[in-house]
Amino acid sequence: MTDTFVVVGGDAAGMSAASKAKRDDPSLEVIVFEMGQWVSYGACGLPYYVKGEIESLDDLVSLTPEEFIDDRDIDLRLGHEVTAIHTADKTVTVEANGESFDQAYDTVLISTGARALEPPIDGMDLDGVLTLHSMHEGGAVRDFIETKDPDSVGLIGGGYIGLEMAEAFRGRGLHVELFEMLPHVLEPFGEAVAERVEEHLREEAVDLHLETAVDAIRGERGRVTAIEADGEDYPVEMALVGTGIAPNAELAEAAGIELGETGAIATDEYGRTSAEDVFAAGDCAEATNVVTGRPDYVPLALTANRHGRAIGETVASGELTEVGPIAGTAVVKVFDLEVARTGVFDEDLAAEAGFDPVSVTIEAESRAHYYPGGTPIRIQLTADAESRKVLGAAMVGREGVAKRIDTVATALHAGMTVDEVEMLDLAYAPPFSPVWDPVLTAAKVLGSKVDTAQPVEADD
Amino acid sequence: MTDTFVVVGGDAAGMSAASKAKRDDPSLEVIVFEMGQWVSYGACGLPYYVKGEIESLDDLVSLTPEEFIDDRDIDLRLGHEVTAIHTADKTVTVEANGESFDQAYDTVLISTGARALEPPIDGMDLDGVLTLHSMHEGGAVRDFIETKDPDSVGLIGGGYIGLEMAEAFRGRGLHVELFEMLPHVLEPFGEAVAERVEEHLREEAVDLHLETAVDAIRGERGRVTAIEADGEDYPVEMALVGTGIAPNAELAEAAGIELGETGAIATDEYGRTSAEDVFAAGDCAEATNVVTGRPDYVPLALTANRHGRAIGETVASGELTEVGPIAGTAVVKVFDLEVARTGVFDEDLAAEAGFDPVSVTIEAESRAHYYPGGTPIRIQLTADAESRKVLGAAMVGREGVAKRIDTVATALHAGMTVDEVEMLDLAYAPPFSPVWDPVLTAAKVLGSKVDTAQPVEADD
Repeated sequence: MTDTFVVVGGDAAGMSAASKAKRDDPSLEVIVFEMGQWVSYGACGLPYYVKGEIESLDDLVSLTPEEFIDDRDIDLRLGHEVTAIHTADKTVTVEANGESFDQAYDTVLISTGARALEPPIDGMDLDGVLTLHSMHEGGAVRDFIETKDPDSVGLIGGGYIGLEMAEAFRGRGLHVELFEMLPHVLEPFGEAVAERVEEHLREEAVDLHLETAVDAIRGERGRVTAIEADGEDYPVEMALVGTGIAPNAELAEAAGIELGETGAIATDEYGRTSAEDVFAAGDCAEATNVVTGRPDYVPLALTANRHGRAIGETVASGELTEVGPIAGTAVVKVFDLEVARTGVFDEDLAAEAGFDPVSVTIEAESRAHYYPGGTPIRIQLTADAESRKVLGAAMVGREGVAKRIDTVATALHAGMTVDEVEMLDLAYAPPFSPVWDPVLTAAKVLGSKVDTAQPVEADD
Repeated sequence: MTDTFVVVGGDAAGMSAASKAKRDDPSLEVIVFEMGQWVSYGACGLPYYVKGEIESLDDLVSLTPEEFIDDRDIDLRLGHEVTAIHTADKTVTVEANGESFDQAYDTVLISTGARALEPPIDGMDLDGVLTLHSMHEGGAVRDFIETKDPDSVGLIGGGYIGLEMAEAFRGRGLHVELFEMLPHVLEPFGEAVAERVEEHLREEAVDLHLETAVDAIRGERGRVTAIEADGEDYPVEMALVGTGIAPNAELAEAAGIELGETGAIATDEYGRTSAEDVFAAGDCAEATNVVTGRPDYVPLALTANRHGRAIGETVASGELTEVGPIAGTAVVKVFDLEVARTGVFDEDLAAEAGFDPVSVTIEAESRAHYYPGGTPIRIQLTADAESRKVLGAAMVGREGVAKRIDTVATALHAGMTVDEVEMLDLAYAPPFSPVWDPVLTAAKVLGSKVDTAQPVEADD
């Protein structure tokens, strides 16, 4: 009897799992239900599509539906929405073309992704108020710019999407008003890094409003005319809402599957949920943080691909394959800056996770002092005072940041102390680094600070 | 009684040791004897000085002699050559201004550096035959170009210096004939990487002659006119010889101090030599390779600085401080390419060191497939079949290589397996990397190859 592997949602995690399972065990029946029309696409590329650096939405697709169906022999059904998972019967209910049917599974993967959050403010339904998470939404933003030719945009939210879109809109020649409720943009990157990013946004003529809650989006005749914030009206002709994303965990929750504290689907080290033969991966699921050992919700592309693949391997082989922990490593391009993070460098978060954090922020040049074109790299590095283990880092600079963060990410996976990081033999040549790489300098300064840190009382 | 710390040679290792020792113990008498007139300079910047990107030799200096003397209270003596170390008496003999005297020490550091090798060929004494290792030599090369205005240069040797100088000379508009005896340039970076570098050199109009031994440098009226190689004459108006460097170990050897198999001064994990209270560091000394655990000679700036500093700490504190192992991490810019290496990726060298090496070479893009401007990165990655530990890597590409090598270097220090490297949470954003970083792709391919590698017989 052929085993049936049902995948709910056909983006990175789902298609990775389906492909890997089918490749490892061609006798497996692999069915993917995708409610939309796109699979396996690079949503991270949407800002560059809007900016115009990428011509077509099709360019963002890694593999077409036809390639999955014809070349990989996967039973991919577009326009099919799974509306219920019956874990006792091991079936899912599917709706498509106005009809409904049940499909049996031996194993099911929930890879339903996430969606853009919509804040509870007036005016969200006006024409010209857009979000950016799916391919469809990306298409709508570019269409709006190209057909309505707005002169200005209000960006609500200063996270990844908000900042990448600030660059995209400025590239399109729009005036940008950016609103962030918190004291700083890019909250997961910390204040030291954010301050440098904010300076740069202002250099790039973005009108930045920090600690500024948007009260409403104003419109006339159904079209956006202004953002109302802190009692003032800022005239704009469109609005893009990037106030975060939420996991699509409702389907799992309705099936009685356990969610974690983060609101995403709880999983174990193999990607298993609380229900038998039900896995979850990607932007709908939690993962284990390598620094804290605790569940975390960091919905990023690599994790989705990697966890999907590992689950596909488990399904095909019948042997449990670990999906692997995450370090929460991330990088974002903000105009000419590279902004990166990994681990737990925020002292409050580190303390909450049970550490005794010590943190330093340093600046060092990206090149040898005499080599032309060097620019400062700012690094925040944090370690635990007792174990001396490095807990995380954030970095910002015009060059040499995007992949330099990986040195610290690798150290986190290895559980290295700040002293071990200081002793790393890192690459040096005048065009690429000072003799002492900025990471080594940060580790040296942090090591000294840890030496002099007050010992914590045992009963603290 | 004040202790006396004598340092022989005032470049990176020597001045780092002197500065650290004096800072940690201001009561220490620290005397540095430097035979030349320059201390603490960035010799790695000389090619860019010759190219004209750096204006003055003074720009390469980190700290002036006056700063060491006045600000750091170090007794720095320029133009002072140590001609003998008497380990039994604990004195050194010094020559300066035509006179000679003895100086007693409690501890001495040999940091005499290295020198450019001069191959035994005819014509080395012609006007216009130059080497490039010291500040003096760098000055002479640029002077020759600016005063004699040559149209062409013969580069003898395709190592770091040869390739950096090819870029510098092309930048000056000279025609470049480059001669390398071996089948490939950049021998320590391996064939897979070298082939890509050679392609690029040809794109940059460098006339490349591989497996071509130079027989002689020809001249007329004392001036260079041609390079004779393989029976042919290649007309050139100057010659730069970059056939490697040799450790200045003669002073140590004459003092009865043990040299290693590499010809450099043998040292232990604290930088101690075979003689009591005699340390050695920098380009004259060996270091321990973190992959093989064996002595190695990789004369590079970071090691010199780091080992000097550690020895300074030991001298000041009286407690032994480890100098730290090296991974042999290096990066070099060759025109528009970044070329990097770390560890032991060459299969023959790995086998000699007792490993059962398995190696793969992959190509992956530097950016997401849809993001404009991506270029291929080639990576050779090697692991031990039995332990699955990663042993080393080499990389080449137009971007994203210089600091990506540090991920592997960090993994080497941590002793990670190829499977652990494959599971690293590395940074992804479309402008900087594919979702699966090229290092992860290399690890995945290598892991599969290790899986299928023939097991080695126990008695092999």
